[in-house]
Formats: sequence, C-alpha cells, structure tokens
Amino acid sequence: MNKIYKLTNEWKEQQLLLPIWFEDGKIRLIDQIKLPFVEEIYTINTVEELAKSIKDMTIRGSGAIGIAGAYGILLAAANSNGDRNYIKESGLLLKSTRPTAVNLMKTVDEMIEAIDNYCGKEVVDFIEEKASEIIERQLGYEKKLGEYGAELINEGDTILTHCHSGALAGAGYGGRALSVIRKAFEQGKNIHVFTSETRPYLQGARITAYELERWGIPHTLITDGMSGYLMKLGRIQKVVVGSDRIAANGDLLNKVGTYMHALAAKKNNIPFYTATSSHTIDYDLAHGMDAHVEYRNEKEVTHLNGQLITEAVTKALYPSFDVTPNELISGIITEKGVMISPYLESLLKVK
Amino acid sequence: MNKIYKLTNEWKEQQLLLPIWFEDGKIRLIDQIKLPFVEEIYTINTVEELAKSIKDMTIRGSGAIGIAGAYGILLAAANSNGDRNYIKESGLLLKSTRPTAVNLMKTVDEMIEAIDNYCGKEVVDFIEEKASEIIERQLGYEKKLGEYGAELINEGDTILTHCHSGALAGAGYGGRALSVIRKAFEQGKNIHVFTSETRPYLQGARITAYELERWGIPHTLITDGMSGYLMKLGRIQKVVVGSDRIAANGDLLNKVGTYMHALAAKKNNIPFYTATSSHTIDYDLAHGMDAHVEYRNEKEVTHLNGQLITEAVTKALYPSFDVTPNELISGIITEKGVMISPYLESLLKVK
Repeated sequence: MNKIYKLTNEWKEQQLLLPIWFEDGKIRLIDQIKLPFVEEIYTINTVEELAKSIKDMTIRGSGAIGIAGAYGILLAAANSNGDRNYIKESGLLLKSTRPTAVNLMKTVDEMIEAIDNYCGKEVVDFIEEKASEIIERQLGYEKKLGEYGAELINEGDTILTHCHSGALAGAGYGGRALSVIRKAFEQGKNIHVFTSETRPYLQGARITAYELERWGIPHTLITDGMSGYLMKLGRIQKVVVGSDRIAANGDLLNKVGTYMHALAAKKNNIPFYTATSSHTIDYDLAHGMDAHVEYRNEKEVTHLNGQLITEAVTKALYPSFDVTPNELISGIITEKGVMISPYLESLLKVK
Repeated sequence: MNKIYKLTNEWKEQQLLLPIWFEDGKIRLIDQIKLPFVEEIYTINTVEELAKSIKDMTIRGSGAIGIAGAYGILLAAANSNGDRNYIKESGLLLKSTRPTAVNLMKTVDEMIEAIDNYCGKEVVDFIEEKASEIIERQLGYEKKLGEYGAELINEGDTILTHCHSGALAGAGYGGRALSVIRKAFEQGKNIHVFTSETRPYLQGARITAYELERWGIPHTLITDGMSGYLMKLGRIQKVVVGSDRIAANGDLLNKVGTYMHALAAKKNNIPFYTATSSHTIDYDLAHGMDAHVEYRNEKEVTHLNGQLITEAVTKALYPSFDVTPNELISGIITEKGVMISPYLESLLKVK
C-alpha cells in the first residue's frame, strides 16, 4: 500500500480536505454529521462497516460516495489478500447501499472489471493502482471544473452558494461549486462568498462555512431568505451552486431553496451557474419536474439539532430538493467545459 | 374599571388572543419571546415597567404596541388617581420608547388629548372610556380588514404566510395577515396555511403556528426556501403577509424573506397580498428602497435559541427587512378596503 499512502500524504500537503482516506490498512473518514463542532475521524475496518456509513450518511455527496466505493474495494482486497470472490461480493454489498448513486455503481464496477486477469498478490497491487487512478482522476476533474468555472468569476465578485457542494462531498479539492470558488481564489481573485445556511439541515452553515474557513476564503453566513434583498442591493455578483441531478433539457434538481435563489438572480440580472460532474446529467429525464423528489422526515424541519423550534403538535413538510427550470440557468459548469443554452443540444456534447 | 374588565371578559370569550390586557388594576402581558414553549404572563405595575417591556420587545408588533400605549395611560391614571401632570409625563415616557412607532405616538396622543377638560375621578373615567374605545376600534379594524381580505380567499385555498402578522402583534383578533386567514376560516371556508418558519428569529414557527393551532386552522410548517417549489407543484393558491411599512408607490417593507416569496408567487401566477393598517402607509417614502433597513446582531443568524449553528469564527449578516416592489403585489388589504395598482393613486384614497 505504499503508493496509496504516498499519494494520501501528497494530497494532505496540497490542503485537500479528504472526506475519506486509507491509512494503516484501514479506511478513515470524517463524520460530516458532527461538523463543524467536532472533527471526528472514524476508522472503518471492514466493508460491512463502510456500507453502514454510506447508508447512515456519515459519508455523503455523490463524489465522496464514489471515492468510498474505490476504497471499499481496496479494503476488501487488503483484508482478503486478494480473494477475488470476496472482492466481488464486497462490490455487490457496496452497490446495494445506494441503488441510485450512479457514481458509486460506476466506480465499483471499474474497480472490479479487470480483476480476473490477476491472482493473489497481483490482485491487491492492481486494485491499489486502480483506486489511486480513480481518485487522482476525480481530483483532476474537480480542478478542471474549477478552472472552467473560475473563468466566469471576476475580480471583486461576491458569490452566493447554497447548501454544500464542496470538498467533503467530492474527492477533496472542492467538489463542484466550491471547486469554482477555490480555483478563483487560488488565481488571486479578490472574492467574497455568501453561504446560505440551507435549512433545515444547515449544510451551508455547518459544512460550506467550515471549508471556506479552512482555505481562508472570506465568507458571510446568511439565511436562505436573504439572498434576494442582497442581490437587489448589488451585493451579489454571481450564484454558483452544485447539483443533485440535471435533466436532459438542463433543468436542475438541487437542495430545496435553490429555485428561489435562481428566481431572485434572474430578476436582478445576476448570472446563476450550477457546477456538476457530467455523470450527474440524466439523459433519460426529459424535464426536472418529472423527477421523483424525496420527502424527508418532518422532524428535520420542526427540530434543529434535536431542539424543537415549534409546538410539538405542529406538522411540517420537507421536500429535499426543488427544480430550477433551465431558463434560469446561465451555464452548467462541468469538467468538460461550461455548457450553455440550448441545453438539449449542448448537454449532448458531454454525454 | 368595571367597563374595561367587562370588555376584557367579552374579548376572552370571543377567543381573542390578547397580547396585553388590564386586570386587578395592573397590566398583564404575554411574553412573546418565550412562546410557544412557555405561556408566561407578566404583570406590569408601573408605566416605567411597561416602557421597559416595549423597549426589550417582550411586547412587539405595531398594533400591540399601540394598545400598550392606551393601557399605559390607563395605568398612569389609575396609579395617580387621575393626576393630569403625571399622566402627561407618562405619555412622554411611553412615546420615547419607540420614536418610530407611529401607532404608539398616535394612540398616546389621542388618550391624553382631552384630559384637561376633566379633573380628579372624572379623568380616570374618561381615560378608561377612551382606552375601551381605542381597543374596540382597533379590534373592529382587524375584523373589517379580515372581511375585505377574506373575499379574496377561495374555498379550498392553501395560503402561504411569512413571519408573524397575527393577533399577538395586534389587538387580539388576528392582527393583519392572520385576520384575513381567520375570517376566511370563520366564514366556513376549507383552507390550509403554510407558515414559513422565518429564520433567523422563527416567528413563523413559534408564533404564527401557535395562533393557528389555537383557532384550529389546519397548517403546515415549511422552511423559507420551500415556498417556490410548493407553488410550482400547485400546492399554494394565495400569499398573504403583513407589513412593516408601505411606501407611497406601494412598495412593501416586511420581514426579510418576503421578497423571495413574492418573486416565486409572480413567476407561478399566484396572487400575493399584504395586509396592513392604513396607518403604516408612509406617504413621505417615495420608494421602498429609499427606506433605512436596520441590520440586527449577526448572532441571531449564527445562533438558534442560544445554540451555535456554525463555527464560532463565522461572520453573518442580518438585514431585518427586505423590499418587495409594487409590481409583485396583487393588492394591499386595509381596514378601508383592498387597494390595487396603480398604488400611487389608490393609496391616496385611504390617506
């Protein structure tokens, strides 16, 4: 495991915020539920434990879950000394944790695809090589996406972002939206970020602010209802958010609240971008409103950090995503370039 | 004080939610900061104590503060056995607590205006009569505003409201926005209310939900960023909010977040109304964006019920109001009727 250890050290020196890594023959991961109050590192000894962590959202974000798939197979190879059957069974287990996570499926499949060409110690070496390659590639995508996006950011811009689309949801550079912001900052641009807190789960207040603080990028926390007024006052120049899924026509599914930021941006002539991996474009989904949107437990709205914020009898609603129609989107930033309207055509270029 | 006690009993029988009332020669008021978790009633023995409660926002809402002015003068009269000089000084003290609260100024002036025509016991009787008259009139306005507004609500409507514009911010019937909703419900209309929680201070989750629950009006709590998506899904038919101030051209100053609900309503062809006392129309304010908007302590954003929701180093911003431009407003509901665009003309009718 010398290669992966060496790489991990290099990544840490590059100020990457790794959501998950390999150390002493085990997987380590940062508990994102407890951030930013406690920086707790979990040790994962078995593939079964990793499957549980993916299920209970200790590790989250489509990029990070893909990386977890790669490390999971590496762990299976290390723990079994390259037993191919065990590795394949581990792959099935990992894939079963999130049947809709495209990135996880693809990564696990890619890790396992060629193992029958190797045996014994060779299997482990091959898997280690493959994991290193996938993670390096993913980091490369994040930086590339960041470069394309950073071209859209001007000196002096204040950028609004919503929810968390950052390093800990990706491979560690900046995920999606925060790769754009991080790259613009590294290019020496004098920027400021408004992070909207993102009720009910407060990913913006908890995780986005945490990452921006680590990189020294100036930022200010606002509540979700404030962006429109700040735009009207001329205090926001760009909006960059992540994406949960993009429809074939460019409609964006992202954390609830995104649509209202986009409406306010349009009204105030402020460019609104989504940063996304080209993998999250769902060509089988014609329109965003056709997608199934999960309704999560109402207790996430009626409670905050376990504390009731309303009367105990009060009912609530929590659609986890909303749909931003393509006409509100100025550009879709991917690792292959920035796609613009008409999306039905431009998105086919990155298929 | 027989008249005021008799009236108070009648009001309570009418299921009014009184923010403040007179009992045993003292003022009682409900602590709105602790709602809905604790229904704490404070006793106010002196005008000085009342001034403090207005300053520290134990009592809030322009209607309720006006009523507090009336009771304050009544308390001064009762405590001094009708000493006119003491009553006048008390009036000055009360007016100094909130120099911008038009309703408070007007009410105190009206209470005191004619006292020099009376002496001794007559002064107290006159003041009691006057306080009863003002409060009855105010309740009448709320019901009248409710009637005008309820005409706009259809059977089966789901109505979005933001922040708290209800009984405890008014005289006790339903304040402004909630008078419309309460009246429509009393008319037998089958309605539902979405109350947006209104971060950072959660007035929607804490107080609006509390009042709706008391009246048995079906309601659901949502976060501020959810309304747009629910509108897109066809789950909201009307928006009714209160108002902090209305400019001469109809621009609305109201709790931050209002503007984004209005944008989403416009985009989805949903009528957006503000309910307001005609007193809050500021004819000297040409445009909403000319108004001074107070920025409150950032700790209200970084903390929730005293609990930190982000890293301790994180800075935040809290503009307390935002501005909804007149073109997003379908009607301004007042106690004198519903004013529609062009507001520059229609608002002059209620001057």
